[in-house]
Amino acid sequence: MKLFGYWRSSASYRVRIALALKELDYDYEPVDLLKGEQKSADYLAKNPNGLVPTLVTDNGDAIPQSLAIMEYLEDAFPEPSILPKDAGARAHARAIAATIACEAQPFMNLRMQKFLKEERSFDETAMGDWLNRFTGGAMAAAEKMVRETAGEYCVGDTPTIADCCLVPQWFGAARFGVDVSGFTKLAEIYDRCIKHPAFEKAHPMNQPDAPVE
Amino acid sequence: MKLFGYWRSSASYRVRIALALKELDYDYEPVDLLKGEQKSADYLAKNPNGLVPTLVTDNGDAIPQSLAIMEYLEDAFPEPSILPKDAGARAHARAIAATIACEAQPFMNLRMQKFLKEERSFDETAMGDWLNRFTGGAMAAAEKMVRETAGEYCVGDTPTIADCCLVPQWFGAARFGVDVSGFTKLAEIYDRCIKHPAFEKAHPMNQPDAPVE
Repeated sequence: MKLFGYWRSSASYRVRIALALKELDYDYEPVDLLKGEQKSADYLAKNPNGLVPTLVTDNGDAIPQSLAIMEYLEDAFPEPSILPKDAGARAHARAIAATIACEAQPFMNLRMQKFLKEERSFDETAMGDWLNRFTGGAMAAAEKMVRETAGEYCVGDTPTIADCCLVPQWFGAARFGVDVSGFTKLAEIYDRCIKHPAFEKAHPMNQPDAPVE
Repeated sequence: MKLFGYWRSSASYRVRIALALKELDYDYEPVDLLKGEQKSADYLAKNPNGLVPTLVTDNGDAIPQSLAIMEYLEDAFPEPSILPKDAGARAHARAIAATIACEAQPFMNLRMQKFLKEERSFDETAMGDWLNRFTGGAMAAAEKMVRETAGEYCVGDTPTIADCCLVPQWFGAARFGVDVSGFTKLAEIYDRCIKHPAFEKAHPMNQPDAPVE
């Protein structure tokens, strides 16, 4: 398998965590978003939306969208699993993942922030309001959800697809100054996750395309 | 089961299609978004983000997020399936669904449009640009994806989770004036879907909370 990603992309980071939790080997091909490599004809043929990540499977199938890639990994390589066994708990893990992927992250997306700043004159205050309202609002919902479902991780005592989404979301929120001070349960889970070897392996700074510190 | 939804909500419509495709009986409880019922304490206890839909299962479990609900229905009631059998095809169906749910719909969300118009002074032109750039851009990606995967429906010849997302997206895009004229394959699939009895049953105008024409 080959993962096309970018060290600092939240969605790429999700998939790297899932791959590491499943102890899967893969080739990594950086797509430099700052150089616009996601808009090359070659990359667009794999991922028509020009977003990272894309997973190219051993069959040569190109799969865009991090949620779809993580579900594919679960289908193709069931163990160790990144979904709970019980249908209700699975639903909660997926609901937390979707709250982050569909409600929190889209409004923090770098492409969208760039548009608002450059083409709609959002200043720092307007951008901060936007991020806290939409991204922060969805994270507040995720906080309430994990208070009902968490053990050591977001749902129970084993990392799931929800944790694969939470950790990059927390990392990005910190980067963009979203106020996360009220999200104490998410913070506790994040702190536990980043000490886990799979999450450490997947960390942006541990990728070959990360800048040398 | 009980579905809390709103007749015109895109995400509620997705889940109604999935329920109808699986021929499942359920109670329907309208949440009037115009009256702000999604912000009642009672509803927020089920869905902390104050969004529709929420599915309350027979166990009393409240599941938010349409993608999570559709996956729950597939787990709990496998047949008829709304995912292809082959892992690669399943991934494509989920990738199309996620492209709509994570990239197209969040930017068309009524709450977000209201904010941009009322608090950031987006006029009709600015709102149109925004919708065509982000929502239209993601739909253009979905168009390219289905050109690779479609048979009679988005992936192959059976309706999947991708079609459950496409039809409400198309319906909403038409409502908000997104330029869909180039999306000929999506249009063809949409036209086929809306003639299917399950999609017809799920249509916004066929819900008890729809206005009488």
